[in-house]
Amino acid sequence: MLTDAITQYQQRVDDQLRHFILAQDDTEPKLKAAMEHGALLGGKRIRPFLVYAVGDMLNIPLQQLDACAAAIECIHAYSLIHDDLPAMDDDALRRGQPTVHIAFDEATAILAGDALQTLAFEIISQEQSGLQPSQQLTMVRSLAKASGYHGMCGGQAMDLNATDKQIDLTTLTRLHRLKTGALIRCAVELPIIAAGITDTERDLLLEFADAVGLAFQVQDDVLDITSSTEELGKPQGSDCESNKSTYPKLLGLSGAQATAKSLIHDALSALAKLPYNSQLIAEFARFIIERRV
Amino acid sequence: MLTDAITQYQQRVDDQLRHFILAQDDTEPKLKAAMEHGALLGGKRIRPFLVYAVGDMLNIPLQQLDACAAAIECIHAYSLIHDDLPAMDDDALRRGQPTVHIAFDEATAILAGDALQTLAFEIISQEQSGLQPSQQLTMVRSLAKASGYHGMCGGQAMDLNATDKQIDLTTLTRLHRLKTGALIRCAVELPIIAAGITDTERDLLLEFADAVGLAFQVQDDVLDITSSTEELGKPQGSDCESNKSTYPKLLGLSGAQATAKSLIHDALSALAKLPYNSQLIAEFARFIIERRV
Repeated sequence: MLTDAITQYQQRVDDQLRHFILAQDDTEPKLKAAMEHGALLGGKRIRPFLVYAVGDMLNIPLQQLDACAAAIECIHAYSLIHDDLPAMDDDALRRGQPTVHIAFDEATAILAGDALQTLAFEIISQEQSGLQPSQQLTMVRSLAKASGYHGMCGGQAMDLNATDKQIDLTTLTRLHRLKTGALIRCAVELPIIAAGITDTERDLLLEFADAVGLAFQVQDDVLDITSSTEELGKPQGSDCESNKSTYPKLLGLSGAQATAKSLIHDALSALAKLPYNSQLIAEFARFIIERRV
Repeated sequence: MLTDAITQYQQRVDDQLRHFILAQDDTEPKLKAAMEHGALLGGKRIRPFLVYAVGDMLNIPLQQLDACAAAIECIHAYSLIHDDLPAMDDDALRRGQPTVHIAFDEATAILAGDALQTLAFEIISQEQSGLQPSQQLTMVRSLAKASGYHGMCGGQAMDLNATDKQIDLTTLTRLHRLKTGALIRCAVELPIIAAGITDTERDLLLEFADAVGLAFQVQDDVLDITSSTEELGKPQGSDCESNKSTYPKLLGLSGAQATAKSLIHDALSALAKLPYNSQLIAEFARFIIERRV
């Protein structure tokens, strides 16, 4: 059931992304191709999955979630393009493919990232039936907050400052809550905004999102050690080589695995208190720490 | 009267920008300082001026225009930070100050630009009395359209492709209509959205905006030849050295000056057909081609 849903929502958001990116006119073919390369060459589509799965659970028609799913993935794609740049993490490989600045050039990669960020806000603010303008405006705000200084960008700044430094568990946790957690939380918040549920239910769902978001990152650190280069689509052990602080470094491999498990336990406890059929997203939470890639 | 208004609106938008940037918490001091450096060290504030001056002409209270003015300047500031990067124009000096990647480092400059773009959308979507959510949503859309692939980013891509190439006048004009014109048009469109005027009036004001936007760029090319490095705050003749196509190169210096004059004539003709007191923005249009910096 989970695998089918993941595939279905992957295809759905890919169709949306293709639509939005390819619908742009052909005046700047290189920029357009770089945007396509950065946004459409694979990817797990975790954030769109959460948008669709949580939204469906809350009885929102999928077509009302398409813009949110595509927009949040554009933000994620732009952040990967910029993170891979030589001045940042300097990565040549992502998802088994050359990164955008390798496949094109550095200037085009910077611009493609910039244009994908803008496209996210264009998509999420487009005229749409079924949603109130006030809801859409709240969604814009949610996406901007999660992406900016107090969210993803702030987390990336922390990450850059933490390279070649020993940081403690509190700092590492804060880093990941910003760098990846904020956008995963936003993926759950967007359908909540569309649904308009009670504050208690909202808080429980966001508790779920925060726990899953952090578990995802802990597991990423674990996989960097336990999976092969082939499985990862990027060099195995690259965190270690780049002198980044990771959960396994601070807690040991089994300590990190226990942390991820405990976070998923918290996520499932929050779900259990909700009056919805949360089977799919519960399965997804378990999958987060069972995945190999 | 124009000088006073320019100073007043410069101070007003600077207060807003300071407020939004400095109100961010101090967790990432380097990123915050880089955002401040990029957005708050001078600048003519042409786009905020147009937001305020056109809005005031249309009887919109200035406090309803603050978010638009600050947001559009954040987009402009982010674009300058990224344009100055080594992989782009590789400029070390801007407004007589070291550019962001020189004052900080390249990674921080990329991130500061990213975060300023996000901040623009956070600011323009913030809860605000006096404007309808549907108006604010239209504003988000207008800003995103002007900034992205079909606007500023597309123009920058054209600009990169045009370096070291001979391009014709039509292409150069299209380049500038995207790279600088789109955001200047947006600066006029945002207060129009707040005011809700007739389509005819809207079209005339946008005609004004397009003519002024292009004249601004033509005059920039002219000043690159006729002004000193000291006046410009960046090396005089830098366009020429970097082998960029410019209006003076294609039309000769006096041809370029005549084009700028003719564009301002068009801008003033459009204004003359409007039932508003457009004295201030008419003066501004004339100033665009009379300025030395």
